[in-house]
Amino acid sequence: MQHPVPDYLRGVLESIRHLEHGEVAQYIPELAQADPRPLGAAVATVTGRLHSAGDDRTEFTIQSIAKPFAYAAALADRGVETVDRFVGLNPSGEAFNELSLEAESKRPDNAMINAGALATHQLLVGPYAGRQERIDRVVSLMSTLAGRQLSIDHATFESEMNCADRNLALAHMLRSHGILHDRAEDIVAGYVAQCSVRVTVRDLAVMGACLAAGGVHPLTGERVLGSLVTRQVLSVMSASGMYDAAGEWLTDVGIPAKSGVAGGVMGALPGQVGIGVYSPRLDEHGNSVRGMEFFRRLSEDLNLHLMEADPLGATVVRFVRREDDAVRLHLQGVIRFGGAEAVQAALVEISQERPERVVVSFERVDRVTDVGRRMVQEGIRRLREDGLTVDVEDPDQLF
Amino acid sequence: MQHPVPDYLRGVLESIRHLEHGEVAQYIPELAQADPRPLGAAVATVTGRLHSAGDDRTEFTIQSIAKPFAYAAALADRGVETVDRFVGLNPSGEAFNELSLEAESKRPDNAMINAGALATHQLLVGPYAGRQERIDRVVSLMSTLAGRQLSIDHATFESEMNCADRNLALAHMLRSHGILHDRAEDIVAGYVAQCSVRVTVRDLAVMGACLAAGGVHPLTGERVLGSLVTRQVLSVMSASGMYDAAGEWLTDVGIPAKSGVAGGVMGALPGQVGIGVYSPRLDEHGNSVRGMEFFRRLSEDLNLHLMEADPLGATVVRFVRREDDAVRLHLQGVIRFGGAEAVQAALVEISQERPERVVVSFERVDRVTDVGRRMVQEGIRRLREDGLTVDVEDPDQLF
Amino acid sequence: MQHPVPDYLRGVLESIRHLEHGEVAQYIPELAQADPRPLGAAVATVTGRLHSAGDDRTEFTIQSIAKPFAYAAALADRGVETVDRFVGLNPSGEAFNELSLEAESKRPDNAMINAGALATHQLLVGPYAGRQERIDRVVSLMSTLAGRQLSIDHATFESEMNCADRNLALAHMLRSHGILHDRAEDIVAGYVAQCSVRVTVRDLAVMGACLAAGGVHPLTGERVLGSLVTRQVLSVMSASGMYDAAGEWLTDVGIPAKSGVAGGVMGALPGQVGIGVYSPRLDEHGNSVRGMEFFRRLSEDLNLHLMEADPLGATVVRFVRREDDAVRLHLQGVIRFGGAEAVQAALVEISQERPERVVVSFERVDRVTDVGRRMVQEGIRRLREDGLTVDVEDPDQLF
Amino acid sequence: MQHPVPDYLRGVLESIRHLEHGEVAQYIPELAQADPRPLGAAVATVTGRLHSAGDDRTEFTIQSIAKPFAYAAALADRGVETVDRFVGLNPSGEAFNELSLEAESKRPDNAMINAGALATHQLLVGPYAGRQERIDRVVSLMSTLAGRQLSIDHATFESEMNCADRNLALAHMLRSHGILHDRAEDIVAGYVAQCSVRVTVRDLAVMGACLAAGGVHPLTGERVLGSLVTRQVLSVMSASGMYDAAGEWLTDVGIPAKSGVAGGVMGALPGQVGIGVYSPRLDEHGNSVRGMEFFRRLSEDLNLHLMEADPLGATVVRFVRREDDAVRLHLQGVIRFGGAEAVQAALVEISQERPERVVVSFERVDRVTDVGRRMVQEGIRRLREDGLTVDVEDPDQLF
Repeated sequence: MQHPVPDYLRGVLESIRHLEHGEVAQYIPELAQADPRPLGAAVATVTGRLHSAGDDRTEFTIQSIAKPFAYAAALADRGVETVDRFVGLNPSGEAFNELSLEAESKRPDNAMINAGALATHQLLVGPYAGRQERIDRVVSLMSTLAGRQLSIDHATFESEMNCADRNLALAHMLRSHGILHDRAEDIVAGYVAQCSVRVTVRDLAVMGACLAAGGVHPLTGERVLGSLVTRQVLSVMSASGMYDAAGEWLTDVGIPAKSGVAGGVMGALPGQVGIGVYSPRLDEHGNSVRGMEFFRRLSEDLNLHLMEADPLGATVVRFVRREDDAVRLHLQGVIRFGGAEAVQAALVEISQERPERVVVSFERVDRVTDVGRRMVQEGIRRLREDGLTVDVEDPDQLF
Repeated sequence: MQHPVPDYLRGVLESIRHLEHGEVAQYIPELAQADPRPLGAAVATVTGRLHSAGDDRTEFTIQSIAKPFAYAAALADRGVETVDRFVGLNPSGEAFNELSLEAESKRPDNAMINAGALATHQLLVGPYAGRQERIDRVVSLMSTLAGRQLSIDHATFESEMNCADRNLALAHMLRSHGILHDRAEDIVAGYVAQCSVRVTVRDLAVMGACLAAGGVHPLTGERVLGSLVTRQVLSVMSASGMYDAAGEWLTDVGIPAKSGVAGGVMGALPGQVGIGVYSPRLDEHGNSVRGMEFFRRLSEDLNLHLMEADPLGATVVRFVRREDDAVRLHLQGVIRFGGAEAVQAALVEISQERPERVVVSFERVDRVTDVGRRMVQEGIRRLREDGLTVDVEDPDQLF
Repeated sequence: MQHPVPDYLRGVLESIRHLEHGEVAQYIPELAQADPRPLGAAVATVTGRLHSAGDDRTEFTIQSIAKPFAYAAALADRGVETVDRFVGLNPSGEAFNELSLEAESKRPDNAMINAGALATHQLLVGPYAGRQERIDRVVSLMSTLAGRQLSIDHATFESEMNCADRNLALAHMLRSHGILHDRAEDIVAGYVAQCSVRVTVRDLAVMGACLAAGGVHPLTGERVLGSLVTRQVLSVMSASGMYDAAGEWLTDVGIPAKSGVAGGVMGALPGQVGIGVYSPRLDEHGNSVRGMEFFRRLSEDLNLHLMEADPLGATVVRFVRREDDAVRLHLQGVIRFGGAEAVQAALVEISQERPERVVVSFERVDRVTDVGRRMVQEGIRRLREDGLTVDVEDPDQLF
Repeated sequence: MQHPVPDYLRGVLESIRHLEHGEVAQYIPELAQADPRPLGAAVATVTGRLHSAGDDRTEFTIQSIAKPFAYAAALADRGVETVDRFVGLNPSGEAFNELSLEAESKRPDNAMINAGALATHQLLVGPYAGRQERIDRVVSLMSTLAGRQLSIDHATFESEMNCADRNLALAHMLRSHGILHDRAEDIVAGYVAQCSVRVTVRDLAVMGACLAAGGVHPLTGERVLGSLVTRQVLSVMSASGMYDAAGEWLTDVGIPAKSGVAGGVMGALPGQVGIGVYSPRLDEHGNSVRGMEFFRRLSEDLNLHLMEADPLGATVVRFVRREDDAVRLHLQGVIRFGGAEAVQAALVEISQERPERVVVSFERVDRVTDVGRRMVQEGIRRLREDGLTVDVEDPDQLF
């Protein structure tokens, strides 16, 4: 039996493939030439499973999705207090390339807008670091999070440096307010380099899952970011990650997320999943048209919403007991997306043992959501398709 | 043995009692005469336990804390689509009594500012409802949520109606944009009535817990609000509940909350707790000085933060087994505030049976946070103080 | 011989009659029913000559054109210092019915926007005046300026009172900031009454000429407003009289002016002329389409621009000497529109004596502008048409 | 006899010398070292007389006062239509170094703010001009206006280039919007060079008088700027020349003016005078403290206000006739500051002939203002002091 989540993702991608409005980013020549057709998505659970579908190995530049990771690095390198002195926490509906500074402190409103990202880049490593050192720091952190060595796309880097007037404007303005002290050209080059890192949707999903897991890497179990740092990054992403319409995103989708003009979107739902999606056509706010729709679909289908805190329930699977004639899967608690995904994973594992009979017990289960029910049903259907006998024990008829 | 949470709350209240800056609300004569000294707090879990401390039975007017509940009622009565046409979802840092309308639609930015609350009040019940009908609707919902019949403080109502110029200004402006259609005086009177409802911190905690539990009443188990309605209310509260500094609140405290000028603050952390606190002195933004500090303390002490999704772990208590010589408490999963509170409750219950020996088993536990450890230790300490023998089984030395 | 200026005005009106875009004001039912066709204009010199053309006797409601006169009355009644405490001097590009208050003082930005006009109305007569007293004051001043008893159009008054939500909103907001102290309804009624006064373009031209003449009535020679009051009114009109695009108006037209939504526009060029024009179709800013064009044409044709200070040159006519065989008209100085108009008036007077010969002497003239030349030529042409012999003495060939 | 105007200016300077608050500009090191004590002023009439007092030969850098002249040059070089496409006409209260672009066109609001001045500099000469060519153009125009070869202060130029972050920010932003096309560094260098031109208050007065005279040089009689260009420059100066408080300046002072951070202020009252004043201490808006007060005093004393159009009355002096026993000065018209200044000049000339008797005739005079009376009296007093007999013929007792 195959894990059903990739099939589910494939289904969602197909259902949004017809969305062909929007345009690839125009203002950077290298991006303007991008093929608008690729479409891929990946989901990584905080418990370490990674599912993907579509063009899931296609590389594209990370662009603004690097911002939360550079912010995390700055918080780790310099401490919350220092970073807060130079970059604010205010939600900002402003377009991504405009100046948005607090009236008195002249801090950029937050680290998700360009002004804030430039200020963040300045904070990397330490006050006297050089341009290459800062670039190395953020690329290295993103590589660690992605679990593979990432590299810079030099063609995109050069292309962006040739039309960097807005970022140079911001950098000079920030220098004039004492927020930056390096040369404007160096900070902008460092920032553009961090934007030019090549990633896939699988990278984004894993990177997002690191944030969702409070800074612990979901595949290695290693702590890569402090929990307070992660919390602050997620908070700022949730208020300001999707440019305008932050309030609508928070209400309708409810997944802290960040998009980039190359067409990527990364999301991170605390305690649950990291999500990556890629489709280059952008709406008028600079967000991937299909990427946004993908998130809306997942949030709705899977009840993935910050305000419906449903932790990834490893504990939904109470235990698996191998008995004489059967493998017995004891479930417990409330079975929603997170739990059902774990049940599916358990069923996949059981299927490989090819037992004569599988018993799924709902005796200790409190409640099953619609999503949970559909997902567990799909798992059982697949087991049966594989020729196994599956019985369900469900005294309270929850299932 | 007493449940330790009330003691904990008492401790927090004492530690913030010295904060004496700020002033009681000045602009309404009746509020200006309020005694600034009362201080009380309550926490209700989504699993139905209610803890309180300090002036927990003192009544005060709910003021702006009624806004999320009126918004919930409007969403329930008229549907999300209709409500969204008249009230936006935009975060709004603006002061609570200024006009903040979207440029094109002329919708108020959100339901937590006064303009949005007036528009919300208009949407109650239905297009042709009368003034009293709308008032009855929202008072009735709040009574259901609080679990007791709430009533209007007529002196405060009259006092506010005598200085209602700002709200009348907003109402006339909204009428001119077609957002309101009732007489300005009627909508303002209805809104002021809803603000004049008397509550205690225990009411606020239970009402918040209803939101945190996705609309299911934590004490009765009854569904009182739809889950989508609840989600939307919490989303808007998290972005706009605390006037200015929404971004800072989300980052530092991370608990969707709403304050009122009488000095109350209500919070709701999805899947976990509702919180109520009361202290009349306000800061320059109109938020209770001690109330804010109380929330900051709880968030920090108990890891109650939206971005650290830690569900209230009923399932942390795997089972309690009465054996011959002992009562054995089997724990599992990750023990954080939520779980530890449940462990404490289980210990309270066990203590009443007065068994010879209690065994607390950590065999199936994955991890214990500092908070969890301290709380379980306190529970065990109290059992022993009661004269019981308590043994801990902790093969992995997690505890 | 007829004075050529009415013919000139007629020509301008005919050249703009084809402009049929724009709509009559929609938001007040009584105005929405207005006939869009009338078109009339008048010009009054500070030296007391009044010329008009088109529908110059048609009455319409003065609307916002009352604002500068109410402001003048308030300045006269309460003094500059008191008025400045409640109404600002800031240019304001804002739409005419939005709130535009200074951040700290909460003063409305200026007396030409509705908020400022309400604050101005409150200042009329004195702090304890009644509603009728304030209305009488401003109607009486406007009647004195117009030189005839003006009256209120009750149908328009009632119609505006029925859709007064925006003004009521502003009034309540101003009350809440302590800018108004009368009941909101009374101030709004007073303001709407002042807007409902019926005038003709001839009234507007004479009223404007009073301002242009520094407060001295051009027909009676009586001082009706103090010179400092007049100066302040003209200053504020020049910065804020034409809603948005104040800067463009000042640059392109350069005549302090005020428009009303019934379709009137009044202008006043210091030291020179008052202008009135009427055509009900409005552009998107609420200014009369043809009215604006009329002003543009006059400014361009006649060099009537604040930055080309050309005083009404009574002294261009040095003297008229009756000699044996001829009437000799000695001119001097620089002959521009102002001077040429005076030359024309002198020629009209001379024509009535029917002398055998008229000599126009340019001996003492320094310079003649194109406008001046055309106007004097036209005067001479008409004299000759009347059968008179006209000789020109022009040793320097200026003419 | 000496002309009394320099004495008058000296008196005004002494009366404001005690104003010692404010500081010399801090943000440019070279300016920060300036001596705060110099104080000088000059007034030039459109008829070509130049009066000065105090430190009237001290050179300082022109700074932002170059903006109206660069704007004039751009209008002359490229035409109004082209310039209007890149620089707006909107009043702008914004601080001088912030970005202030129109929402849609992205044009800077006006040519008096830095963004607009950079856009203006780009427009000099023609689209393909080089950096030095643009600098030469504006320095050359300012030299022509001042009537002497002006030069750049290289120390100040270098000092400003070292802290040019704000201007570089603006230039990059304008490039990103397609308003600039030259390299940001080149435009900023050109702009800073134009700001570094050394002038005296006498230069400023004469340059202002050129504008006041509609583009005709008051000393040479040569036309140096088109009348439409001059009109547009004066219009923009009157709305935006004095940073914030444009409305107050227009109302209280009523003289189109422009200040620079080195402490200079230049004013130009159409048809009357150009004014220059210098004192380095600045208020919080960046305007010279004493400079502003000087203008306030002149406007008040001499009725120099845009809304009290009083043309410089050469024609007030009707004629001077040398008779046997006396020189007879025939006056006419209305005698205000302008006319009285001309009367004083005539008396100075008469005094040099040392006639036995001087007769001043008011027979043909219509009116004498207080200022006019005081000034003519002072002239007569001085003649008598010189030992001359002076009689006044004043049948209507106007004097």
